[in-house]
Amino acid sequence: VTSSGADREKPKRADARRNYDLLVEAARKVFADQGGGASMEAIAKQAGVGVGTLYRHFPKRIDVVEAVYRDDVDSLVGLADRAASELDAWAALERWLWGYVEYGRAKRTFLNELHEAFEKNPDLKPASRDRIWAAANQVLRRAQEAGVARADVSGEDLMQLMTPMCMNSTIGNEQGERLTRMVLDGLRTS
Amino acid sequence: VTSSGADREKPKRADARRNYDLLVEAARKVFADQGGGASMEAIAKQAGVGVGTLYRHFPKRIDVVEAVYRDDVDSLVGLADRAASELDAWAALERWLWGYVEYGRAKRTFLNELHEAFEKNPDLKPASRDRIWAAANQVLRRAQEAGVARADVSGEDLMQLMTPMCMNSTIGNEQGERLTRMVLDGLRTS
Repeated sequence: VTSSGADREKPKRADARRNYDLLVEAARKVFADQGGGASMEAIAKQAGVGVGTLYRHFPKRIDVVEAVYRDDVDSLVGLADRAASELDAWAALERWLWGYVEYGRAKRTFLNELHEAFEKNPDLKPASRDRIWAAANQVLRRAQEAGVARADVSGEDLMQLMTPMCMNSTIGNEQGERLTRMVLDGLRTS
Repeated sequence: VTSSGADREKPKRADARRNYDLLVEAARKVFADQGGGASMEAIAKQAGVGVGTLYRHFPKRIDVVEAVYRDDVDSLVGLADRAASELDAWAALERWLWGYVEYGRAKRTFLNELHEAFEKNPDLKPASRDRIWAAANQVLRRAQEAGVARADVSGEDLMQLMTPMCMNSTIGNEQGERLTRMVLDGLRTS
């Protein structure tokens, strides 16, 4: 009985996880299209579920924002490992930095809402920043050890330059891309 | 009589101007040492004048802040011309960008007080920004025309990257210098 109970549990939990991922994905898309003020109804519609299902997973809209943000941070941190396993040291650094630019772009769409989430949960911001800075150091150090990135800057330095640029709402996407290419050229040893 | 009256006026006006410059210089030094909250007494003492003389030129502390700021903007804008007349295109761009970093450092010491001045005088901030961006374009374009600076960024781009970095109070002086060197390497055509 225990064993068949566990068997019945597993698909359920996997389903719940799939639903959760689906809702987070839908919310990310809706925030990108409509901004962080998008309604729960719009997110549920995008996910193809009833709004009750959405509220069951996320009692408040701020919870959806926090879930999208956490998922984005996880992806960006994971990107450092993925890039390291697939690419050479310079290409991995480059790939990760562009990933950071994309991350910043997404974050900017729900920044006002995210501030609420940060107030509710004061550890969320510093913990995420520490993880992202560690990922920046990981890709940068590897490139420095390979002799392809300048040795006089750290991952923290790089983030201090890129973060305000990526969070500045007056910097358009193309302008941000031009500046990122310039920063990458500055990072690379000639 | 008119002519001798004018003769008597001139040294007076020159004296007043000298006093004004002296007070602005003293205020700049005191703000750098003590921050923008420094007292009128401290500024008068630094200038070696009575506090009454200071109040005659600047009825409120915010007026001193505004005067220092205007003088800093003038110097930075003038630096573009001076550098152009004395240095080659790349060295002039480099010199000006370091001048901008120094300007930002000074501005950071009285940023809170400056916000008040910006509120009082809404044109001050955008007018100053326009002049500084024009100066950035002036030195950058000359370097681009000489083929020593990358062609795909503008003075506005450069300022959008440098300004938040220079205004970020969590970025120390050395970190700012490392990043400025990296930006300059990214700007330079290899």
